[in-house]
Amino acid sequence: MCRWLAYSGTPVLLDTILYRPTHSLIDQSRFARLGLETTNGDGFGVGWYTNESSTPALLRDVGPAWNNRNLRELADHVRSPLFFAHIRASTGTAVQQSNCHPFRYGRWMFMHNGAITGFHLMRRDLILLIDPSLFAHLEGTTDSEVMFYLALTYGLDRDPPSAVARMAGEVERVGREHGVEFPLQMTLAITEGEHLWAFRYSTERASRSLFYGSRVEDLRGLHPDVSFLRDISPETRLIVSEPLDNLPGAWNEVPESSYRFVRPGSDELHPFAPAPA
Amino acid sequence: MCRWLAYSGTPVLLDTILYRPTHSLIDQSRFARLGLETTNGDGFGVGWYTNESSTPALLRDVGPAWNNRNLRELADHVRSPLFFAHIRASTGTAVQQSNCHPFRYGRWMFMHNGAITGFHLMRRDLILLIDPSLFAHLEGTTDSEVMFYLALTYGLDRDPPSAVARMAGEVERVGREHGVEFPLQMTLAITEGEHLWAFRYSTERASRSLFYGSRVEDLRGLHPDVSFLRDISPETRLIVSEPLDNLPGAWNEVPESSYRFVRPGSDELHPFAPAPA
Amino acid sequence: MCRWLAYSGTPVLLDTILYRPTHSLIDQSRFARLGLETTNGDGFGVGWYTNESSTPALLRDVGPAWNNRNLRELADHVRSPLFFAHIRASTGTAVQQSNCHPFRYGRWMFMHNGAITGFHLMRRDLILLIDPSLFAHLEGTTDSEVMFYLALTYGLDRDPPSAVARMAGEVERVGREHGVEFPLQMTLAITEGEHLWAFRYSTERASRSLFYGSRVEDLRGLHPDVSFLRDISPETRLIVSEPLDNLPGAWNEVPESSYRFVRPGSDELHPFAPAPA
Amino acid sequence: MCRWLAYSGTPVLLDTILYRPTHSLIDQSRFARLGLETTNGDGFGVGWYTNESSTPALLRDVGPAWNNRNLRELADHVRSPLFFAHIRASTGTAVQQSNCHPFRYGRWMFMHNGAITGFHLMRRDLILLIDPSLFAHLEGTTDSEVMFYLALTYGLDRDPPSAVARMAGEVERVGREHGVEFPLQMTLAITEGEHLWAFRYSTERASRSLFYGSRVEDLRGLHPDVSFLRDISPETRLIVSEPLDNLPGAWNEVPESSYRFVRPGSDELHPFAPAPA
Repeated sequence: MCRWLAYSGTPVLLDTILYRPTHSLIDQSRFARLGLETTNGDGFGVGWYTNESSTPALLRDVGPAWNNRNLRELADHVRSPLFFAHIRASTGTAVQQSNCHPFRYGRWMFMHNGAITGFHLMRRDLILLIDPSLFAHLEGTTDSEVMFYLALTYGLDRDPPSAVARMAGEVERVGREHGVEFPLQMTLAITEGEHLWAFRYSTERASRSLFYGSRVEDLRGLHPDVSFLRDISPETRLIVSEPLDNLPGAWNEVPESSYRFVRPGSDELHPFAPAPA
Repeated sequence: MCRWLAYSGTPVLLDTILYRPTHSLIDQSRFARLGLETTNGDGFGVGWYTNESSTPALLRDVGPAWNNRNLRELADHVRSPLFFAHIRASTGTAVQQSNCHPFRYGRWMFMHNGAITGFHLMRRDLILLIDPSLFAHLEGTTDSEVMFYLALTYGLDRDPPSAVARMAGEVERVGREHGVEFPLQMTLAITEGEHLWAFRYSTERASRSLFYGSRVEDLRGLHPDVSFLRDISPETRLIVSEPLDNLPGAWNEVPESSYRFVRPGSDELHPFAPAPA
Repeated sequence: MCRWLAYSGTPVLLDTILYRPTHSLIDQSRFARLGLETTNGDGFGVGWYTNESSTPALLRDVGPAWNNRNLRELADHVRSPLFFAHIRASTGTAVQQSNCHPFRYGRWMFMHNGAITGFHLMRRDLILLIDPSLFAHLEGTTDSEVMFYLALTYGLDRDPPSAVARMAGEVERVGREHGVEFPLQMTLAITEGEHLWAFRYSTERASRSLFYGSRVEDLRGLHPDVSFLRDISPETRLIVSEPLDNLPGAWNEVPESSYRFVRPGSDELHPFAPAPA
Repeated sequence: MCRWLAYSGTPVLLDTILYRPTHSLIDQSRFARLGLETTNGDGFGVGWYTNESSTPALLRDVGPAWNNRNLRELADHVRSPLFFAHIRASTGTAVQQSNCHPFRYGRWMFMHNGAITGFHLMRRDLILLIDPSLFAHLEGTTDSEVMFYLALTYGLDRDPPSAVARMAGEVERVGREHGVEFPLQMTLAITEGEHLWAFRYSTERASRSLFYGSRVEDLRGLHPDVSFLRDISPETRLIVSEPLDNLPGAWNEVPESSYRFVRPGSDELHPFAPAPA
């Protein structure tokens, strides 16, 4: 399994979110608490939007995040209003850059914690469902990347929740055909550079942990002494695999079978269910 | 493109063949003469058979061969009667371990210099031709690995020349369907640990260079002062992308559209032509 | 801190010792129990002796051992009568191949778990003590490598316990000059390819864990059903940072301030104390 | 040897300078024309200043620049008014991140093409000349890094040309003591984030190539159709190991034994000679 975080809001140095919190993602790379694995050392990735391009920039590498100097450098020098970060614990597929999250297609970024159970059996059937025009973009060998390209196939750029629902539906259908009882386990983050969608779902209704940060204004009332909260706009949002600190009132579980939609104004929580393709 | 060598015969330290010749494969990694590229620095691999296992051991890494210390160490300490070595110049696919040659399946090893022209267009069609039971073994994203699994699909373990012919036939058929005039360019080495097959073929009949070493006994007559020739058995054989030295009489071009079959006793040269699958 | 093991005895596939035990070194790379860190993912190394050379071969890399495919390959194909393996948890120095243990000088190998406290302050003074003729061999930036070259300076190839004692004495002397109360913390393994010395010492007499395996004949009596014990000679020995399994009676703590000397015939346990240089 | 470039002026995407020119530094990593080596594939580095920090950011890695995806990503997304880029061809020292240029100390960056002849003999003597307070910052094993710390020792932050002259003087003095006739060969670039100094010198007065770009206004007159020239300010400057393109009139050789000083207003060319420390 893996750990990830998605940030949206006031442009901050990546360091502020990636390294500074007491139980930061970097800390989680060695000492994760809520995952199946304490160690997430099989590669990492950061993807961030800048003013220079509509497509996000990616830094991905195959070693652990905790000792990577290039990540440390970027964190100290890059400021972004919207970024994803991911640390990987391989469930068996190769530790290579093309298997590191986030994945990117045009403006879109995608990252995942979870697994398709029995993926090695279903891989052929699943990649056949990917639109042939997208097929040449497949670069790695993970279930996660296949999920991304299936979602793209089913209209991610028009209606992300519907595309993810159809992707999940197809994974479950193909899984059942291969005799897998609980094919899908996922927490997903998706963005096109403006909005953010975060999904929590598993066939067996026992999904990996996922949390969203409380509203900045509420947190300021609870913690008037936390300076970081004064520096960020009310629209700032975090969604994380596990909480970055122990700040009371800061973290809220995304319910089973639901997704969080983050956008300027009010965020939304919606139910999520797989759908036929 | 790439460069490779295949050795079979008297067990030697890998160093003897990989580093010692004046225009060794390590030298070719920076200064290749007969390839499209002078630099072959996008990863490398060595596969060798030992007494410990029927499957060959692999050392593969993503950096250049010329500065790799682990390769240097192995070359100084590992002795083998049959080994492959390959240096890669990527034609665009990712530089990652799973894209480094040689590829292995059970006892079989496979390495390649060349390309399927338009592979990104044909990749989906070609991998669909791979036997579903083999599909889960695909780990990388190269045309070369797909060629290997196609050959396995078409009976590599029963009749290698026929399997390679059918693989080549299918690549050309699918290429033509995608409007590619000259889909296939290949020099291939294949072994199961005892015999060695080396193919030279391209659709346009302008194949990459491929040479086989002269018979040891003939070379001894020509070069009575070369001590290496006295140390190896008459059955020792080398097949290489380009000659390892300038020894007169040592290297012979494998003709266009043919393959070399190396086995104890007499080697053979046969014509090669793609065949329907 | 780090974890290591040293094996001497019946030639075995590295796999037998590195991967097979229930709490193997590979397992310890993610789930160490007795170290300061549970994760030892900052590089690894294996050094083994063969019949091909009096110098040992090294495979070292900067990623974690647990996902390294080249290590997995070697473990399946290399057999050796004497080998060292080490997994690193950096105490701050760079994660680079030249900082990975074991270190080698001619026939000698050296690996270490521990640290020189305040090394960054003492480094200049300590490397000045290295014999100038050895200086050019320093390749990395660890305290461990400096300890090795100091021991070489003080006669490692003539009298290892004395050389290590003088090295430890100098580290403590220089440490005290810099106001460090407890400068040295070490468990060391050293070999020249025939004998094995393993030291456990710390200035504060609270040394990292170190264990030696019980005599094979004693273990056979205790565990007549363990087939591995029947396959190895009575002279086979293991020394480890932490036990590789829970086999009752198999592991014995090396006492504080002592060293174990392993050689054909009887092993010996001796007291260890730093000495003036 | 190596190749490098230093850019100062209108903030541009790194891509504009690193990848776009016909004979860009990326092209030079495989096809250098003026160096001793055509291939510069033993690691690379980029250092750039941003508004976020007075210290530059570094991206350095051990593989070749030409296939590095993280470099490609940064080049597409990072804009900077002042950056260094370097591609390395090792003269024997290890290929590791800590040996990749540029080196950094606080606000200062330093990169080098050349070598100290006989460095392995002089290394001990030279590092002893480094100010002990700087010593702990030494991370790698190159002659280049030692030159940087010697220059820092001799007052780089007060008077760069004088500090470099004293460094060069000491290298030559120590070299002569070791019987080396021509100890120093260097082209150096140094900056503190505002000004830029580029030195060309060798003991034997046969220095590696070094060029500075012509004044933007002069080039605009010569090449009114080159759009890039219209987009950059008159203060924009480039200094390079070898020209990035064949634009007539664009490149001027830095004379032997001189240095170029780039600052807002007028650039300057000064003679350079080693000085006693």
